[in-house]
Amino acid sequence: MDFHIDNILKDLTKDDFDAYLLTQFTNVEYISNYKPTSFAFCIIKENPIIYASGMDMELANRDSQIEVSQYESYDVMIKDLKEDGIKNLAIEPTLPFSTYVRFRDDFKIDAKTYIDKQRMIKTPLEIEKITKATEIAQKSFLQLDILNNNNTEKEVAFDLVRYMIENGASKESFDTIVTSGSNSSLPHAIPEDKKLDNPILIDWGAIFEGYCSDNTRTMVYTEHQQEIWDIVAESHDKAIKAIKPGMKCCEVDKVARDIISDYGYGDKFIHSTGHSLGLDIHETPGFSPRDETVIEEGMVITVEPGIYLEGEFGVRLEDTISISKKGNVIGDLPLDIV
Amino acid sequence: MDFHIDNILKDLTKDDFDAYLLTQFTNVEYISNYKPTSFAFCIIKENPIIYASGMDMELANRDSQIEVSQYESYDVMIKDLKEDGIKNLAIEPTLPFSTYVRFRDDFKIDAKTYIDKQRMIKTPLEIEKITKATEIAQKSFLQLDILNNNNTEKEVAFDLVRYMIENGASKESFDTIVTSGSNSSLPHAIPEDKKLDNPILIDWGAIFEGYCSDNTRTMVYTEHQQEIWDIVAESHDKAIKAIKPGMKCCEVDKVARDIISDYGYGDKFIHSTGHSLGLDIHETPGFSPRDETVIEEGMVITVEPGIYLEGEFGVRLEDTISISKKGNVIGDLPLDIV
Repeated sequence: MDFHIDNILKDLTKDDFDAYLLTQFTNVEYISNYKPTSFAFCIIKENPIIYASGMDMELANRDSQIEVSQYESYDVMIKDLKEDGIKNLAIEPTLPFSTYVRFRDDFKIDAKTYIDKQRMIKTPLEIEKITKATEIAQKSFLQLDILNNNNTEKEVAFDLVRYMIENGASKESFDTIVTSGSNSSLPHAIPEDKKLDNPILIDWGAIFEGYCSDNTRTMVYTEHQQEIWDIVAESHDKAIKAIKPGMKCCEVDKVARDIISDYGYGDKFIHSTGHSLGLDIHETPGFSPRDETVIEEGMVITVEPGIYLEGEFGVRLEDTISISKKGNVIGDLPLDIV
Repeated sequence: MDFHIDNILKDLTKDDFDAYLLTQFTNVEYISNYKPTSFAFCIIKENPIIYASGMDMELANRDSQIEVSQYESYDVMIKDLKEDGIKNLAIEPTLPFSTYVRFRDDFKIDAKTYIDKQRMIKTPLEIEKITKATEIAQKSFLQLDILNNNNTEKEVAFDLVRYMIENGASKESFDTIVTSGSNSSLPHAIPEDKKLDNPILIDWGAIFEGYCSDNTRTMVYTEHQQEIWDIVAESHDKAIKAIKPGMKCCEVDKVARDIISDYGYGDKFIHSTGHSLGLDIHETPGFSPRDETVIEEGMVITVEPGIYLEGEFGVRLEDTISISKKGNVIGDLPLDIV
């Protein structure tokens, strides 16, 4: 894990903050190598410190590259911070309101995304781990032999997770989606106890050394399904080809969305074109109509257009793109795998 | 799912709030029967409404017992609320700071736990589902045949999840812990790719129709391990026997903790004695030294004392207790299952 504390200290100085409070587990992990299993307060300042829960002390002492102290109470922690001369405190946008309330009387507070911004740009090692996670997930998918089985959605989802773990994943990167027939029009469908119908939509990923992968394939069986599949595939391919550093994220979304709209299905593409991933399955920036973030080398973002016909079926195709001079698809699983 | 909106409206009136904003998925599910898979804003007021993400509209329209409208923007939602005469807005303590910021200029805001308080008291149907989840989890545990296998921690964890799903669970209620040897001193250990050592600590649960179960068993093999096990078992049994409505939660923690302290291991019991569960695996109240909540009939709370000897091993024993006139252990898996 690279250390990015110096960059954050520069950000803090520039914006006139004395410290940055982190409580999101993956942010604490990113900065310290210790992933909390209970609450933790990580304070980035000249001498960074993590206040860890008593039950996590053995783990934190083992893994953290930042000094660890056992959390006693808000009062003790706030007293420490004040004695350290901290007046202006940056927090994460996700900090729960009730935690914010504990700090607001003693510090001037505002939300900052310093860590999210660093996490946008993956190091070569991070990209290697995402690639390995993707390879595990794709290899496992190919072991499924979907066409020759008579299993339920739930059983297929379970087999896929089993293969991923056998192939070296620590776990699935999100609840595996195996859906079929009319349920496939729900973008986040839950696998059911019913035999596979058609089309079959599978959205799955693995975690390898903390890093996530994310792919979707849809297997279609009728002419109408194939027609929709072809539109989604065109949107997927052209969006990926369009990606380059210097563009805005919303411009990639527009490429994908315009193709689907041109075929008359614009109102059936009911989500963003993609999201970043890394230690979390959903990170920023995303290929969405409102995201003005400028694309940079080192970003890793999914492209996953879809068309959802309520009461009929849905089609989604998703790959994860590592951005260098252009967008490079991670993994080599064909879109059309039937 | 019982409807509790009337009670919340009474709470709002009493505290002079005009509406209550819910965004936690299980709170939205509890009140509407629709469990979001993307963001959602549920506003409890005279005419409750859920602003759902476009990608969730089909699901929300299918499942929600509250009116659903498609989310467009904060501006539109805030305009609607103001036109509805809403000035004082209650929020959940967990609301992210960045969401709070969107509302704070237009409304007088404070955090309230109205839903958490209702969720503390389970209905007979909720207790039935928690019981069924526990039965599935315990039956699956007994299928493991731990003593006669030569598997790794990760394989045993995986088998347990597989049995739970085969036995009717929708999924595990949290990342299954199968740990052994010296790693068992980490309360939230992650299963590793190594053959089972001793002792073996397994902390696991199932989800059935949305409701969680939670149990821990530790299998010991040496005299020293047995000695520690006996202390934890005594703490577990006596805390459960002590539970009755009218007591404070912290008093149950004290019963469990005093026994372990009397044997000289007070500083090795590094977490609370227990937590409530239901739609979430961790709910309030908990048997912790600081929780002054008065125990009531209908609460479902775990009792899970533990002793953790860093570098040596850990022992934890956990059951889930349904509280009527007394504390009733859910399920019938013996503590000593070797």
